[in-house]
Amino acid sequence: MNASHPDLKNDRLMRALRRQDVDCTPVWIMRQAGRYLPEYRATRARAGDFLTLCKTPELACEVTLQPLERFDLDAAILFSDILTIPDAMGLGLSLKEGEGPRFSRPVRTAADVDALTLPDPEGELRYVMDAVRLIRQELHGRVPLIGFAGSPWTLATYMVEGQSSRDFSIVKNLIYQDSSVARRLLALLSNAIALYLTAQAHAGAQVLMLFDTWGGALGHAEYRHFSLDPMAQIVDALRADAVARELPIIVFTKGGGQWLSRISEIGCDALGCDWTTSLREARRLVQDRVALQGNLDPAVLNASPEKIRSAVRDVLEDYGTGPGHVFNLGHGITPGIDPENVKVLVDAVHELSRTPI
Amino acid sequence: MNASHPDLKNDRLMRALRRQDVDCTPVWIMRQAGRYLPEYRATRARAGDFLTLCKTPELACEVTLQPLERFDLDAAILFSDILTIPDAMGLGLSLKEGEGPRFSRPVRTAADVDALTLPDPEGELRYVMDAVRLIRQELHGRVPLIGFAGSPWTLATYMVEGQSSRDFSIVKNLIYQDSSVARRLLALLSNAIALYLTAQAHAGAQVLMLFDTWGGALGHAEYRHFSLDPMAQIVDALRADAVARELPIIVFTKGGGQWLSRISEIGCDALGCDWTTSLREARRLVQDRVALQGNLDPAVLNASPEKIRSAVRDVLEDYGTGPGHVFNLGHGITPGIDPENVKVLVDAVHELSRTPI
Repeated sequence: MNASHPDLKNDRLMRALRRQDVDCTPVWIMRQAGRYLPEYRATRARAGDFLTLCKTPELACEVTLQPLERFDLDAAILFSDILTIPDAMGLGLSLKEGEGPRFSRPVRTAADVDALTLPDPEGELRYVMDAVRLIRQELHGRVPLIGFAGSPWTLATYMVEGQSSRDFSIVKNLIYQDSSVARRLLALLSNAIALYLTAQAHAGAQVLMLFDTWGGALGHAEYRHFSLDPMAQIVDALRADAVARELPIIVFTKGGGQWLSRISEIGCDALGCDWTTSLREARRLVQDRVALQGNLDPAVLNASPEKIRSAVRDVLEDYGTGPGHVFNLGHGITPGIDPENVKVLVDAVHELSRTPI
Repeated sequence: MNASHPDLKNDRLMRALRRQDVDCTPVWIMRQAGRYLPEYRATRARAGDFLTLCKTPELACEVTLQPLERFDLDAAILFSDILTIPDAMGLGLSLKEGEGPRFSRPVRTAADVDALTLPDPEGELRYVMDAVRLIRQELHGRVPLIGFAGSPWTLATYMVEGQSSRDFSIVKNLIYQDSSVARRLLALLSNAIALYLTAQAHAGAQVLMLFDTWGGALGHAEYRHFSLDPMAQIVDALRADAVARELPIIVFTKGGGQWLSRISEIGCDALGCDWTTSLREARRLVQDRVALQGNLDPAVLNASPEKIRSAVRDVLEDYGTGPGHVFNLGHGITPGIDPENVKVLVDAVHELSRTPI
């Protein structure tokens, strides 16, 4: 894809996502560059605040690489935030410790939606592309780099509610009562995200992932219209780009276990699964059309090394034999985890998946 | 069951739960006696606080009956709280507006579990049984009375965490790291809940429901061991009592859509479904072994009457023809809803289910 980059030294993730044989199961961890690491907290303290950390490519690169120094991880993931796009749209993002994100100018009406414009990935969002370029260079082909974005529905929940929500009553009122406005907002977001991910591919990302964190809050019919269809449009747009079309795409709807068969039909390469889903059952549902990524309960990382190893074994056995498994947690790692326990997990995945089950 | 009570004038709910034909689909609403009703807020203001309202049978009866005066509902549900049992165990429950429940003496260790004793349903919990007796009498056979309890796992989450939780890290650490302690706690809760529901049946409840509000936070394997098995023990205990065995039992695991087939095998009569589950798909999964209750997204009640009616129609059509459907929301009604919209919903269920779909 880019002749100036060295070949990948570790291609386990790429092979597993393409459902090819691997020597052992690849593993990475959602939010692996995060607050549970003291070196992350030190860099963040230097940055001053979270948004500055995201917006300074050298610092974003530094924290992206930190977990790779400690653990035998099979992928790096761009350090960033799903809210970079609405931030670039000028909604006035602030992130206060312990409060969650807030937008000072939420999107509530048709006029609000009409006033939105597509951010330029190499303009307002250039800092993300610069981070991708720098990380890709600094990785020297050690492991692949995953780029990512939030799903249209997930971004819409924050943009409409103006903050985190428990019952999503404002954004749900938009889809139930003003569905044409909701559809316009989601179409705009699909376009913005497709441009953003395409630009990440051009900047050097080797895998792309869509985080549909709040898709599971929707009804089964609304999920299709307001989350899955907009994600399918993104996948279609990525497949139309000569560079992006070569990258494996992972789609993760948290709480979407009932819909895996449907999600597997939108043209992505892999599905994320949370811990409520049996991987064995998931394989049956997706009929090996896609690879599966997951799905250890992050709470297991509070337990003893012995328990972590046995829980890793359970996930590997639940997936069973054959290609197409990427080990991960079922959701992001939580801030209080002991990094030593992450080492136990990563090493256990490699060791136990080498042994025939 | 009790010769002193008049015959039921409206037996739609009983018939639907037994999968018998009905003239139209019965409907009731989780938390139908609640803050969205001005008359409820007035009674609660007289009581002073929520716990006093629960613990005063005359007031609990009053608020239980309030929604029946406004709406053509097919059931009454005991006004109470799932935390009456841990409260009776002496854990120091307090409920502050906007804060959620708190226990001043959470259960964390083996010694904490050993110190717990079974509450006497006609002792510490007599106020609940008195409320059941009074409500049943005041209903004069108008509609059936539903009694209920929280599931063992759901009660355990509050008792161990000491408050509401987002990631359940403390109680999950108990099941992952000290599973024998967790099992003892859950066994004790199964016994306590079985005694409590049996006593509600003897006091006059005509249907029993288990609210497993937080079962969906568990992994697929942990759900079986730590939530479903303890609920199965309760169902078995109820079937062993000459009075309770006659009552239909509804089990509702919020977020349990992937596990409906398993849940349908524990001997209950009906499953609650939240809005993420297609009732058509759910019927296929449970193969008509049980009735289904649900599953409109409560957020629809913020929409216009026209939208509410069309959403009701969608749920009825999703269930399809044949017996065994009890209409409800997929979770409790939220405080800000206009009561007029509830009337639209209830009337739409009856009217639209009379018309052949």
